[in-house]
Amino acid sequence: MTLMRDSIDNNLPVGIFDSGVGGLTVLNAIRAELPHENLVYLGDTARLPYGTKSPASIARYATQATAKLKDQGIKLLVVACNTASAVALEALRNQMSPLTVIGVVKPGASAAVAACPGGSHLVLATEATVGLGAYRDAISALDPAAIVKEEACEMLVALAEEGWTDGDIAASIIRRYLTEADDGDFRPDSIILGCTHFPLLKEAIRAEADPGVQIVDSASTTASVVSQSLQSAGIRRQSREAGTLRLLATDGATRFARVGGLFLGEPLSYSDVEIVDL
Amino acid sequence: MTLMRDSIDNNLPVGIFDSGVGGLTVLNAIRAELPHENLVYLGDTARLPYGTKSPASIARYATQATAKLKDQGIKLLVVACNTASAVALEALRNQMSPLTVIGVVKPGASAAVAACPGGSHLVLATEATVGLGAYRDAISALDPAAIVKEEACEMLVALAEEGWTDGDIAASIIRRYLTEADDGDFRPDSIILGCTHFPLLKEAIRAEADPGVQIVDSASTTASVVSQSLQSAGIRRQSREAGTLRLLATDGATRFARVGGLFLGEPLSYSDVEIVDL
Repeated sequence: MTLMRDSIDNNLPVGIFDSGVGGLTVLNAIRAELPHENLVYLGDTARLPYGTKSPASIARYATQATAKLKDQGIKLLVVACNTASAVALEALRNQMSPLTVIGVVKPGASAAVAACPGGSHLVLATEATVGLGAYRDAISALDPAAIVKEEACEMLVALAEEGWTDGDIAASIIRRYLTEADDGDFRPDSIILGCTHFPLLKEAIRAEADPGVQIVDSASTTASVVSQSLQSAGIRRQSREAGTLRLLATDGATRFARVGGLFLGEPLSYSDVEIVDL
Repeated sequence: MTLMRDSIDNNLPVGIFDSGVGGLTVLNAIRAELPHENLVYLGDTARLPYGTKSPASIARYATQATAKLKDQGIKLLVVACNTASAVALEALRNQMSPLTVIGVVKPGASAAVAACPGGSHLVLATEATVGLGAYRDAISALDPAAIVKEEACEMLVALAEEGWTDGDIAASIIRRYLTEADDGDFRPDSIILGCTHFPLLKEAIRAEADPGVQIVDSASTTASVVSQSLQSAGIRRQSREAGTLRLLATDGATRFARVGGLFLGEPLSYSDVEIVDL
């Protein structure tokens, strides 16, 4: 512990990694919880989406991209992508050692179990996350009595990226996925937004869900885990000044700025985005 | 010409390249027109979609992927992807020289101009294809009197991949894009399906379009160009036997088989798909 405190500069940024722009919803929560921390975000837009790729490709892409963040100097890595968290968290921990690596699946599972102990959970996620049963495993480990159903919802990714987050089309698509998940007798207590794109659709999902269903996302729980982890390692930034934010992407600054602005909740210009070559 | 006839083996396959599975709609048309030709298809599923990436990345991906087809031995290359045809056709011609390389944009433009000379054309395509004005340029070169409007329709790509090709959701999404394209006085004579995913949505688009609008896609025109090109180079296969078909992908045989089966119009198993490493 003493070694950690001495060897990591508190002013180094927290690194946040995603396949694209969806992780900016997690960045928002971290920035709200930890306004004095410097942050650097990397979106692997050259290879997105991860959610429809094979586990081997996802792990290769994630380790290549996060090596760039390690080279830049970071004090902790947040894997702000459910698919990469589900598929590649161990590979990323090995690669980044001795830095702490925090994924979004376990915090999301914790939030759902805290909201509805012993309950039924519907996980909306990408095909890769569902294929690995990542949320099912994480929730069962925390709450063996829980019932979990997972539904792959690729059209929700496209909806969020297109910015069609309300209106009839969003409602119809959400209703279709919720109907597919309901095989007659499955009435979830919580709906888990198991992809970082989906918080943009939170109100539209709430409007289609049964009254009283909890809508759970990983962002704020992940931010709390980041805060606790920095605290316990003694590497919280000591400055009273607002932290800095750098945005890196592996392709397409113009599209990153346009779509990323939707997720960040503030306008971005392409000049706000630095392109890094892998 | 004599050199070409002597140096290219007629039994070599025609290579067909796409970023994913959409090009299988073009493969279908080639197979119908040229049933005796051997065909090899490569989908760059590890890096799809191309339509939202930058021109530099698209060109790099396309040349890397088609190098694999060149190594396998082909007698002609079809770029069965509108985005790659729009962005990277010259780079691919340089790379594959002296082989003939045929894209899908010019055949699609020819088909539209033939259907509606001097008319108005609405091109539905990916963001990258629209960004380069590829159809606008190709149509204007053939028919200076034509009026062309291009509309980026990323949600249609997702719809086709999800297999939601009919019903209310497809209709609503198509209606929204057609309404966005109609700024009050634009009434197209033709709608060009400027992405190889979109032929799966042809009937749904026809149902939402004004009566009498021609729905044009590149597939059959491209197949005719391939046939003429093989004929004029003297490299049509002479056998009376049905040609063989090999399907290659750079990632995810299971997903390729599931989604690709929708585009090929026949069931595929993952064992039908060979994974190649780039």
